[in-house]
Amino acid sequence: MIYELYYWPGIQGRGEFVRLALEESGAEYLDIALLPEEQGGGVPAMMKFLDGPELARPPFAPPFLKAGRRLIGQTANILLFLGPRLALAQRDPGGRLWTHQLQLTLADFVLEIHDTHHPIGGGFYYEEQKPEARRRSRDFLAHRLPKFLGYFERVIERNPDSDKWLAGKRLSYVDLSMAQVVAGLRYAFPAASRKALRGCPRLRTLHDEVFARPRIKRYAASGRRPAFNNDDIFRRYAELDA
Amino acid sequence: MIYELYYWPGIQGRGEFVRLALEESGAEYLDIALLPEEQGGGVPAMMKFLDGPELARPPFAPPFLKAGRRLIGQTANILLFLGPRLALAQRDPGGRLWTHQLQLTLADFVLEIHDTHHPIGGGFYYEEQKPEARRRSRDFLAHRLPKFLGYFERVIERNPDSDKWLAGKRLSYVDLSMAQVVAGLRYAFPAASRKALRGCPRLRTLHDEVFARPRIKRYAASGRRPAFNNDDIFRRYAELDA
Repeated sequence: MIYELYYWPGIQGRGEFVRLALEESGAEYLDIALLPEEQGGGVPAMMKFLDGPELARPPFAPPFLKAGRRLIGQTANILLFLGPRLALAQRDPGGRLWTHQLQLTLADFVLEIHDTHHPIGGGFYYEEQKPEARRRSRDFLAHRLPKFLGYFERVIERNPDSDKWLAGKRLSYVDLSMAQVVAGLRYAFPAASRKALRGCPRLRTLHDEVFARPRIKRYAASGRRPAFNNDDIFRRYAELDA
Repeated sequence: MIYELYYWPGIQGRGEFVRLALEESGAEYLDIALLPEEQGGGVPAMMKFLDGPELARPPFAPPFLKAGRRLIGQTANILLFLGPRLALAQRDPGGRLWTHQLQLTLADFVLEIHDTHHPIGGGFYYEEQKPEARRRSRDFLAHRLPKFLGYFERVIERNPDSDKWLAGKRLSYVDLSMAQVVAGLRYAFPAASRKALRGCPRLRTLHDEVFARPRIKRYAASGRRPAFNNDDIFRRYAELDA
């Protein structure tokens, strides 16, 4: 099976959570919007699924994944589907629900991280909402960031089956996503995240272990992983990191 | 099986999406935080699971559901679990993923509705973020509300198996959630939602059909369904409905 991933070019965004799972498992996939239009790629190939009038099950937004005749949207839903297929999820149904629950909580966290620079909405540029972004960021860094990180640190600590992964004995897709969030936070808020991660040794180790895995390392060095940048979810604005 | 639901008293909130599924299917359940403390209920019984040091799989926030020895958090995840058990989901795995995908998109919609009155974050009262709430609401009502409603209207229109439900032949949990969102929007934004729903005859019909179902009707008349109010997700502030 060659998977087809559809996501905006130029950013990691939510597509990156899916990419890390595909890369770690060595799955074959095409990153359609990154292919030349002459080869049936590019953004138009992606928009076809969003705007196309024929689709019975249209996704609301990227990322979405084509797996054979299936078209699956919503990041956490894609990972729920891929998990068992890529051997990145637990075998028992209870374990799968738990892993998915953690992924959904991470998705909430990611949205709050995004909203630090876009509290008034995606319809305005950051430059049009700077004072509001400062206020929201201060609240986020003081209360929400330690709350979320403390929660995930505790989840690893309490995992009866492993002392380094979030759920189950082995690495699962939610560990990859967690490592990506730690990396993103360090990019966006270097000072505040250093402080917040001080009390989270397990999350720091998880991050290092994930990015030291041979396939993830190779992917990060391949030039295919977009760099963090200020069109993305995680953005570095010095004035917000305080 | 007697399910135990844990959610904040006094509001519908995200707990209501779970309640509607339990009510529609006639499932037996206890709404633990609404029971007297002498009977092992109340908010302390709920907090035990959030703060308790022993739990291997702690939820991040309410609602969560206890089903035998399982404890399941995240609204959409609870419904993913309950769907097949309450005969409120399709039988085939593809149909289940699709229903879940719609529920996750609804969850995104609900969060954007919430953020119209809390753009700067839950750490501040509405009164501390009124100008920001106006700005965010204007953008939401102009762009996001019609985009989300148009999407769900189209999903019903394209459903090959039904001309009134979102997914599959029969009512599923996502239809109940969708009806709840329409009701909430009408409470929060009476003028703007009337206008936005004008082009969405299928969503209006879905809402009416859901709230006319005997068990949902009985539940709504029972006094157990909290009224919409301004401590909740859907809030009516006249100044935002413009």
